[in-house]
Amino acid sequence: MWKQKSLNFIRLQCLSKRFLQRSARRQQYGWKRVDRVGLLRTNIAKRALVMKNCPGFHNQMLWYSTSVPHSMNAKPDNVIRNHAENKATQLTLKEIVEFSSPERFMEFASFIKRELPVRISHRVVELESLPYNLSDMPRFEWKCKCQSHEFSFVINKQNSILKLRNMYQLGFHLIRSLPEPIDNVSLATFVKGVESHFKTLANATEWLAAGITECTIHHPSQASQVRTCKFLNGFLDRFHASRIGTRLLTGQLCALYAQYYDSDGKPKAIKSGKSGALGIIDHNCSPKEVLQWAVDDASRMCHENFGKVPEVNIIDEQHIRFTYIPTHLHYILLELLKNSMRATCEHHKDLDESKLPPIEAIIVGSSASNEVTIKLCDQGGGIPKDNLDKIWLYSYSTVPPKDAKTKATPMAGLGYGLPLSRLHAQYFGGHLGVVSMHGYGTDAFLYLHFLISQ
Amino acid sequence: MWKQKSLNFIRLQCLSKRFLQRSARRQQYGWKRVDRVGLLRTNIAKRALVMKNCPGFHNQMLWYSTSVPHSMNAKPDNVIRNHAENKATQLTLKEIVEFSSPERFMEFASFIKRELPVRISHRVVELESLPYNLSDMPRFEWKCKCQSHEFSFVINKQNSILKLRNMYQLGFHLIRSLPEPIDNVSLATFVKGVESHFKTLANATEWLAAGITECTIHHPSQASQVRTCKFLNGFLDRFHASRIGTRLLTGQLCALYAQYYDSDGKPKAIKSGKSGALGIIDHNCSPKEVLQWAVDDASRMCHENFGKVPEVNIIDEQHIRFTYIPTHLHYILLELLKNSMRATCEHHKDLDESKLPPIEAIIVGSSASNEVTIKLCDQGGGIPKDNLDKIWLYSYSTVPPKDAKTKATPMAGLGYGLPLSRLHAQYFGGHLGVVSMHGYGTDAFLYLHFLISQ
Repeated sequence: MWKQKSLNFIRLQCLSKRFLQRSARRQQYGWKRVDRVGLLRTNIAKRALVMKNCPGFHNQMLWYSTSVPHSMNAKPDNVIRNHAENKATQLTLKEIVEFSSPERFMEFASFIKRELPVRISHRVVELESLPYNLSDMPRFEWKCKCQSHEFSFVINKQNSILKLRNMYQLGFHLIRSLPEPIDNVSLATFVKGVESHFKTLANATEWLAAGITECTIHHPSQASQVRTCKFLNGFLDRFHASRIGTRLLTGQLCALYAQYYDSDGKPKAIKSGKSGALGIIDHNCSPKEVLQWAVDDASRMCHENFGKVPEVNIIDEQHIRFTYIPTHLHYILLELLKNSMRATCEHHKDLDESKLPPIEAIIVGSSASNEVTIKLCDQGGGIPKDNLDKIWLYSYSTVPPKDAKTKATPMAGLGYGLPLSRLHAQYFGGHLGVVSMHGYGTDAFLYLHFLISQ
Repeated sequence: MWKQKSLNFIRLQCLSKRFLQRSARRQQYGWKRVDRVGLLRTNIAKRALVMKNCPGFHNQMLWYSTSVPHSMNAKPDNVIRNHAENKATQLTLKEIVEFSSPERFMEFASFIKRELPVRISHRVVELESLPYNLSDMPRFEWKCKCQSHEFSFVINKQNSILKLRNMYQLGFHLIRSLPEPIDNVSLATFVKGVESHFKTLANATEWLAAGITECTIHHPSQASQVRTCKFLNGFLDRFHASRIGTRLLTGQLCALYAQYYDSDGKPKAIKSGKSGALGIIDHNCSPKEVLQWAVDDASRMCHENFGKVPEVNIIDEQHIRFTYIPTHLHYILLELLKNSMRATCEHHKDLDESKLPPIEAIIVGSSASNEVTIKLCDQGGGIPKDNLDKIWLYSYSTVPPKDAKTKATPMAGLGYGLPLSRLHAQYFGGHLGVVSMHGYGTDAFLYLHFLISQ
């Protein structure tokens, strides 16, 4: 039964030449794999041999799909598809600030009740149309040698991207099942539900990265193609940019609820105004303080990994404060500092902590250019010219995977740090640039807009 | 007679709406300008009024041509046109070095004898097809007030671009008339002729810039359009890149002749080898020494203009030496230093010389990346965000024209410095980048290839 159902989902787009040849050899010598996917592959190979003679069949294309049992590969239902046809409503930071007043908080919650299912439905639909078999690929795990005997196991298991898609599907139905926030009781239930969804999907980036890594491990010949694939990098850009926006809304809802309501769900007596924190937004965000926070975090990780930490000198003569989201700024600065500290320690392996060249940080604001610029200069040896274009690719990392398996908090590994930092900067119209002097060091320039007139 | 001939050259492409309206008003009120071009314009306006009703006539287009007497606007003859159909032969620095040995010098001279007319013919043909009337526009000069009386003079005169084109035409025929370099006597005559042409066209960039400035002065409404015109900026890029290559060849010929032959045209006794200077190429070019040379020149200009000079700290721990053309490097570094020193002095008007923030220069070489990087950091206040894209446009300058009329050597004004510096860097595959922190300063990054393995 499952076989019949799953066959319905075989979307044979194209088969690689090597796969065709291998399948043909298997048939010729009577050798067949006995696992379920093996049987299905034989069928696919038969179809492909017919298709190969069709005009327009391009045997270098690698976008083919194998199949997994139906239960693992459930398609989004029509409710999700219908929601995905609506556009997400983009809000500026100014609009979010206006929405965040105590008077309009219920309205903000209602907006999120309508908006979240639309945004989640986009994620579900996008996650089922990935190239390189990423949306459907079952995860194989095998061990080859044990006490000089060879064993092989094939385990058919849900892969990380499929798992993530299912989480989004569950989240979609959860949010829709929550009550409309119209009074304190329904608001409390709604916010708790949103918070649960927010926490469940906290590691979505890691799952997505794991899914892509699984693909490159199972298909090593595709690895470099997957990493440099423009379509996939473009998808990841859109996916994460959209995720940043959605988590900004849900994070703001939860933070404001904690600010405006007590633990019993009753409104607190609070003053409305533009000073200080407003949910996750800070009207007095000090880049210097956030930088110091990131320096503390990066220093701890650096000490765990290298036993020494380069000094960070911060220059902020204007004592800048502006309206921004400190967690976004912290994310970007932590990524940059982790890279700079790691590069400095690795480039100056033989130097003691006291002799490590310091990282120079300069913070400048310009009302004429309507922006804050933060420059971080390290002397960590820079980036080789050939790798400079790759630093913005997802899954590109200068650290080999094995290095990321130490007990210490890894300082690098996924290769998502820089592209995600740039997305965070770009979300409100800013920019992140990296300039390298190979043999000396790297300068990172972070430009952030004054989002609300200071 | 001249009028009939010149009418043949009227290439009426399009007339601006404003010009049409003005011409129509003139006819309505019986007011006419009495100068030759005025009469011609009336004719053009009549034609344009007819054309205006034709389908496809786009009255916002500004590419129209007035006419000047034939003698001033002579078209290149067929010999030049035939030469312009040939492609220029591009040489790498390695090939030029190989050509520059004493044994192959005569061969090099013969190559230049064949190559120069082709390259010059391209310049002549390109200079006659410029948009915005630049190729034909006569230069008007008038004075409006003198002792409270109003006078107006209209002087019909050759414009700077026309003058430049005629110089190239003369140069073309001069080079062709020179003897084929086959022995010491003919070589001496040939090199002297090339040297004369080389010197005559030393200010070609200034003439071209002057021609464009004249256009913007006579047609103020077109000024911003001319400055940002992609076609014109692209033409100027190609023109100057090609000019850099041609002057590299002719400069190398003259320098090598002085190196290999005495003043009587007899060969000197010299050693062939890869050490030291080879014409204008230096196998032991030290970026630090060239930077110091540029610092001296820029400091002199800065002192003349501002009475104070910021310090320049140079870090070159690797004591780099590589094969390059010191004059190219000097050109780029002088432009960057002039900008940095001027910005520093203007941004810190009230500070004494001893308190001016220094310009930091770092020189690093990387054999892995096969390049030398030179970074110049100033604290001159940076570039406003809105102007950052414009710095690579020709004719864009942060200095108003009147400031460039002081007695001191002007430190800026034409607006050709940065785009020409980038072209010099790009000529052998290098790159020049500028990153600004508005409110603080600007960092310039110059990347130059190791052209011959060091």
